[in-house]
Amino acid sequence: MLEKTVIPGPSSQLLGLRLARYLKSNVVPIEFKTFPDGERYIRIKEEPKNCHAVVVQSTLPPDPNQSIIELCFILETLKEMGVEKITAVIPYFAYARQDKKFLPGEAVSGKIVCNIIQNAGADEVITVDIHSKRMLENFKIPIRDVSAIPQLGEYLNNFKLTDPLIISPDEGAIERARNLAVFMDAEYVTFTKSRDKHTGEIEIKIKEIDVANRDVVIVDDIISTGGTMASAAEIAKSQGAARIYATCTHAVLVGDSRFKILNAGANEIIGTDTVPSDVSIVSVAPIIAEALK
Amino acid sequence: MLEKTVIPGPSSQLLGLRLARYLKSNVVPIEFKTFPDGERYIRIKEEPKNCHAVVVQSTLPPDPNQSIIELCFILETLKEMGVEKITAVIPYFAYARQDKKFLPGEAVSGKIVCNIIQNAGADEVITVDIHSKRMLENFKIPIRDVSAIPQLGEYLNNFKLTDPLIISPDEGAIERARNLAVFMDAEYVTFTKSRDKHTGEIEIKIKEIDVANRDVVIVDDIISTGGTMASAAEIAKSQGAARIYATCTHAVLVGDSRFKILNAGANEIIGTDTVPSDVSIVSVAPIIAEALK
Repeated sequence: MLEKTVIPGPSSQLLGLRLARYLKSNVVPIEFKTFPDGERYIRIKEEPKNCHAVVVQSTLPPDPNQSIIELCFILETLKEMGVEKITAVIPYFAYARQDKKFLPGEAVSGKIVCNIIQNAGADEVITVDIHSKRMLENFKIPIRDVSAIPQLGEYLNNFKLTDPLIISPDEGAIERARNLAVFMDAEYVTFTKSRDKHTGEIEIKIKEIDVANRDVVIVDDIISTGGTMASAAEIAKSQGAARIYATCTHAVLVGDSRFKILNAGANEIIGTDTVPSDVSIVSVAPIIAEALK
Repeated sequence: MLEKTVIPGPSSQLLGLRLARYLKSNVVPIEFKTFPDGERYIRIKEEPKNCHAVVVQSTLPPDPNQSIIELCFILETLKEMGVEKITAVIPYFAYARQDKKFLPGEAVSGKIVCNIIQNAGADEVITVDIHSKRMLENFKIPIRDVSAIPQLGEYLNNFKLTDPLIISPDEGAIERARNLAVFMDAEYVTFTKSRDKHTGEIEIKIKEIDVANRDVVIVDDIISTGGTMASAAEIAKSQGAARIYATCTHAVLVGDSRFKILNAGANEIIGTDTVPSDVSIVSVAPIIAEALK
């Protein structure tokens, strides 16, 4: 088997290094900067020889386009260097919500981004809790999606929660809640979310759940504007929940989302290092390392 | 011959419409917006049927990566719609200065961007005064680079310049100055520029040119930080030039470049609509229309 060399991209520097430590592998550093006109400069500082290169690069908000282009620069340059095998680890995969046409003429941007990355020369792709599993079908190369749920569960178990209840804020995320519940040996339940097609507003329907004095973990794949999470926290709070943990894999957290979620009654926001931020407490490095073994 | 339909991309809305008027062709509008997480939304609002689609999209500073990704979204969506022929007009082509490796391990970003655009489905590409002609060799599809010099010359001729002297700020741009001089029936000359490899500082060597009381046009392909142009203007001024026109095709004009250039003695900065800005006075629509005929 080829020796692995991890190449942490500009948007996943910490996670890349953490992964290398789990794998006990070499690391090749990248030099990167922005020119005054906004163009990015990328240089792979050492030649990764006779190895399996593992590039770690989230396609990050607020400039996912930059991260995508950077990833292409890295992949093409490695390919040109004659690297034997290249795995692109894309912990946060941007544009995964635009996985089909909702209106005629729409760019199915998720699919197009898959094409761009595939053409740049990855031999395989690893993603973490990708929003739409349908996205995976766009790749002709091997692709695996791994789940951060075990890592999140392990972290939450440290809190010694009281009769915990795992809540999925909508029916689409129910599997995630179920998996976390299994891991934490807890109950789980789902809210019913509907989005108004014209205004984009979200209505969360309340179900009768006994949450009084229980610790609640609301879990979603992405927290973006925080609207869904805040509504769910508010409902849980109004029904007498004790502590409330707003938990996700990808804490995108735009604008005032942090305020909204905590103000709605959540005690903490917990995310992973797929999206580096002030709440990316949990590392997905162990699960990515596992997938690479 | 297929009827042409112009599709002005998000970064070339005005130029796209100007081109359509020169071509007397149909226009298909694009809807575009940015989601709160920085992802772009693109929708082609009408189906361009049985036609030759002409997409106009500069890859613009300060976010060239976004324009590149948008261009891919448009090209792939048109291809999916079954459009017969697609021309990508890329008036300002980003990353054209990184056309080779200067240090080992560097991403040859210009070449990689060519690959990305080519793979997205363009049948041919048209650029305007691309910085490096070498870039054109990266495309396997037909590519043409047209020059804005006739349009700039026509505009400058309006000023009734006094014994005009066309100056190229460095030897690399001499052909451009010569072409403009021919068009304006004027003399031309070049400065000698050298860049310190370590500090990046530019030294412009002074030649004995009789510029006293003459109107001077300094012409370059790109004005970016304005350093080269400001130095050239200062030299011309110090040698007694009358009016000084800082002229270029692509007025990228980052930071305080406008101030630097005018403060060095230039009377005006003149650019084209390849890069929309407060100095993009001259339109390249006629020369692109000509190339498409």
